[in-house]
Amino acid sequence: MKRYQALADTMAAEIRAGRLAVGTRLPSVRHLTTQYGVGQSTVFRAYYLLEEWGLIRARERSGYYVAPGATLPPQAPPPVPLTEPAPIDVSSLVFSVLDAVKRPDIVPLGSAFPSPALFPLARLAKSLAHAARMLDPWSTVVDMPPGNEQLRRQIALRYIGMGIAQPVDELIVTNGAMEALTLCLMAVTKPGDVVAIESPCFYAALQAVEHLGLRAVEIPVDPRDGLDLDVLAEALDKHPVRACWFMTNFQNPTGVTLAVEKKRALVALLAKHEVPLIEDDVYGELHFAQDRPPPAKAFDTKGLVMHCASLSKTLAPGYRLGWVAAGRHAGAIRRLKLMTSISTSIPIQAGIADYLQHGGFDKHLRKLRGALLAQRDAMEQAIARWLPPDVACVRPDGGYFMWLQLAGHVDAMQLHRRALEHGINVTPGPIFSARHAFGNHVRINFGHPWSPQIESAMKTLGTLLRAAS
Amino acid sequence: MKRYQALADTMAAEIRAGRLAVGTRLPSVRHLTTQYGVGQSTVFRAYYLLEEWGLIRARERSGYYVAPGATLPPQAPPPVPLTEPAPIDVSSLVFSVLDAVKRPDIVPLGSAFPSPALFPLARLAKSLAHAARMLDPWSTVVDMPPGNEQLRRQIALRYIGMGIAQPVDELIVTNGAMEALTLCLMAVTKPGDVVAIESPCFYAALQAVEHLGLRAVEIPVDPRDGLDLDVLAEALDKHPVRACWFMTNFQNPTGVTLAVEKKRALVALLAKHEVPLIEDDVYGELHFAQDRPPPAKAFDTKGLVMHCASLSKTLAPGYRLGWVAAGRHAGAIRRLKLMTSISTSIPIQAGIADYLQHGGFDKHLRKLRGALLAQRDAMEQAIARWLPPDVACVRPDGGYFMWLQLAGHVDAMQLHRRALEHGINVTPGPIFSARHAFGNHVRINFGHPWSPQIESAMKTLGTLLRAAS
Repeated sequence: MKRYQALADTMAAEIRAGRLAVGTRLPSVRHLTTQYGVGQSTVFRAYYLLEEWGLIRARERSGYYVAPGATLPPQAPPPVPLTEPAPIDVSSLVFSVLDAVKRPDIVPLGSAFPSPALFPLARLAKSLAHAARMLDPWSTVVDMPPGNEQLRRQIALRYIGMGIAQPVDELIVTNGAMEALTLCLMAVTKPGDVVAIESPCFYAALQAVEHLGLRAVEIPVDPRDGLDLDVLAEALDKHPVRACWFMTNFQNPTGVTLAVEKKRALVALLAKHEVPLIEDDVYGELHFAQDRPPPAKAFDTKGLVMHCASLSKTLAPGYRLGWVAAGRHAGAIRRLKLMTSISTSIPIQAGIADYLQHGGFDKHLRKLRGALLAQRDAMEQAIARWLPPDVACVRPDGGYFMWLQLAGHVDAMQLHRRALEHGINVTPGPIFSARHAFGNHVRINFGHPWSPQIESAMKTLGTLLRAAS
Repeated sequence: MKRYQALADTMAAEIRAGRLAVGTRLPSVRHLTTQYGVGQSTVFRAYYLLEEWGLIRARERSGYYVAPGATLPPQAPPPVPLTEPAPIDVSSLVFSVLDAVKRPDIVPLGSAFPSPALFPLARLAKSLAHAARMLDPWSTVVDMPPGNEQLRRQIALRYIGMGIAQPVDELIVTNGAMEALTLCLMAVTKPGDVVAIESPCFYAALQAVEHLGLRAVEIPVDPRDGLDLDVLAEALDKHPVRACWFMTNFQNPTGVTLAVEKKRALVALLAKHEVPLIEDDVYGELHFAQDRPPPAKAFDTKGLVMHCASLSKTLAPGYRLGWVAAGRHAGAIRRLKLMTSISTSIPIQAGIADYLQHGGFDKHLRKLRGALLAQRDAMEQAIARWLPPDVACVRPDGGYFMWLQLAGHVDAMQLHRRALEHGINVTPGPIFSARHAFGNHVRINFGHPWSPQIESAMKTLGTLLRAAS
């Protein structure tokens, strides 16, 4: 190992252990050359590495500071005991949070969506108009589930791009990923069954578990490492788990992506138990690194992974176009779809098929990823600038959410309410948990082009957080 | 009462009592003038009335014959005992029947849809293109449930046309009526609850009851008089019924419409028990008489009726645009919608709103009703021409289904299979029943412009039925 790497590791350990708090100015280069007996260039290269890791941030003409998120968790979290499967009771809290999203006067840091201004709505309208004009009347019958064949071929092509040979006849078009996820859950469970979900967890999964009368065992998700496979293995041994519902890439709310090796291990573990995985991968295309992180589906050899995705976050918000690559459950899901919603809108399917063929999806995606990356950086800077140094978060490598851990005594629900009074929506941690845990966490959306309004909202949040201390 | 009216009533009673069998030639005019001591013109006017009532049909140069369906039921049906609430188990039969609908080479007498050629798809495409081009990006957030405000105002206007002052904020836009019905059922039940459904019954209701883990008590529907309110009253007294799911106008499969007074009595009965009514009214606009039959919702004063409808059968097949006028359950249904499918497609909502405002919906409806009426008459003539005289059915006054009662020993399932071998799809009665009753009934679709292919299919059906005798 090179000297600068060793130095970076040493300093990273200091930072991660919390011995250098968030916002602390790092020692000067001169100080470090003396302390560690190394040359200036070694120190600089170590700094660059630490910056690349997201642990420190440079401020112009001021030096290096410990970055927000670098020290999460301040201490190792207490080991999470395996929860007993329990019925879910999501309070109306979720809805009060969601309702505020619709108000145009509210700064949408609590939104679940990126800004609709980031999408090629005019080009989509062109494809939709063309497809509607050309619509074969009989497509209203023929394109019923599993769905429009051209569209499913286009979707299958994208799987090839992920190294997955996806049979077209196992692809079922749905009304967004939400319907796909719900149908998967219905296909493999009956009321009273036990399912494994994440903690923290996309609240809609909690709601689905609730309204289908299932019981849930919660598997902890670490904001750096993702799902705890040891706890999952224990749950599978101990409970008759009928299905897992996990978000493998840029998880909502933590932003964490499961490493490839962990995905492989997850699929193998579930295959051993013959437990289906409902894989929610709606953010996978929003990666900031070069390559799209693969889904767990890529490692599935038994048809047990139901890979659910959509275009709602990547191309066409509001069109409600999603799908599931359903493996061995394709037949059951197609039938459930037919039963519960008959079909996905036929002109929408045809319009999206036209866009995917002619609209320049990949070019749009590159632009979108660039915009989200710039917004993430702006958000990180605003956090460093305005929020108290005891706010910690892990830098996400994709998607548009930051999961902030506030000081231990700060009540996220109270912050949510106070922020709303100031015209700002943030998503309080407790709505991501069946037991209303994460009482000192909030999820922040950076899916909107940076604006003075957002900057000012972050400043206000900082003021509210300091007042709460 | 005029003499010809009295004569018509007398003869109608004879026919309905089965004393004049289907296909029987009526006595000559001369015979009747003698028998009843009336003039020739009185006999003629009585005949015209009987023909108008659908009880007799003229054959050119041959005289009058008792029409198919005039004598259903041949005898009064045996009193139906109240069924015990039971879990539903719909076999995969339903799906094998539905799958055949998608095959373009099959004569679609078993289809659940009218011909897509009957709809103004080009005009709709224009509205959709316009709306997509004009789409405010923020509508992707703002038009989430309850849905696009312009659209809901247009829908509310149509309720005014039915004499109903429908608050816009109790209207929730859904992915077709199917989603509306399912959400209503979910909103007012939990697994294990008892609900009342019709027998025979739209099979999707059976499937919804099945997949939500409910138990059903079946209320008989008479093809002439509709729902048996006495049996319903008994069921309400005897079982903890949590909801009713009934189709009040042009019921699928029987085609029967509940009389206004029975609708009023139904709503009063349910109000007394505080039991919500999920009213499926997707065919109400397809009336052949002057006026649209009112929904039960028109008599609801307690917000207990959830009126579900759509444009799938009247305007825009495949668009998947429906709604529910949800009364006191509007809040719960809006939330369930948000949970399970997030939203109905935003451009679709905007496109339909544009069409309803500018597209000439009422003009289209008049044309559509005229086409369906002509097709009904053609189907009735084909039944008289080709099917054996022991096939009985009641003439429907709207919609596009005929419910045929075959001779007692004919097995509708076998007929379904034999017909498929001949490239013809008919819907066998057992899929409309939780207990696979109606073994000698089939539902025939007359929603397709008359064609030599359909004529030939009816002839083949006749041959198959005679062979089965």
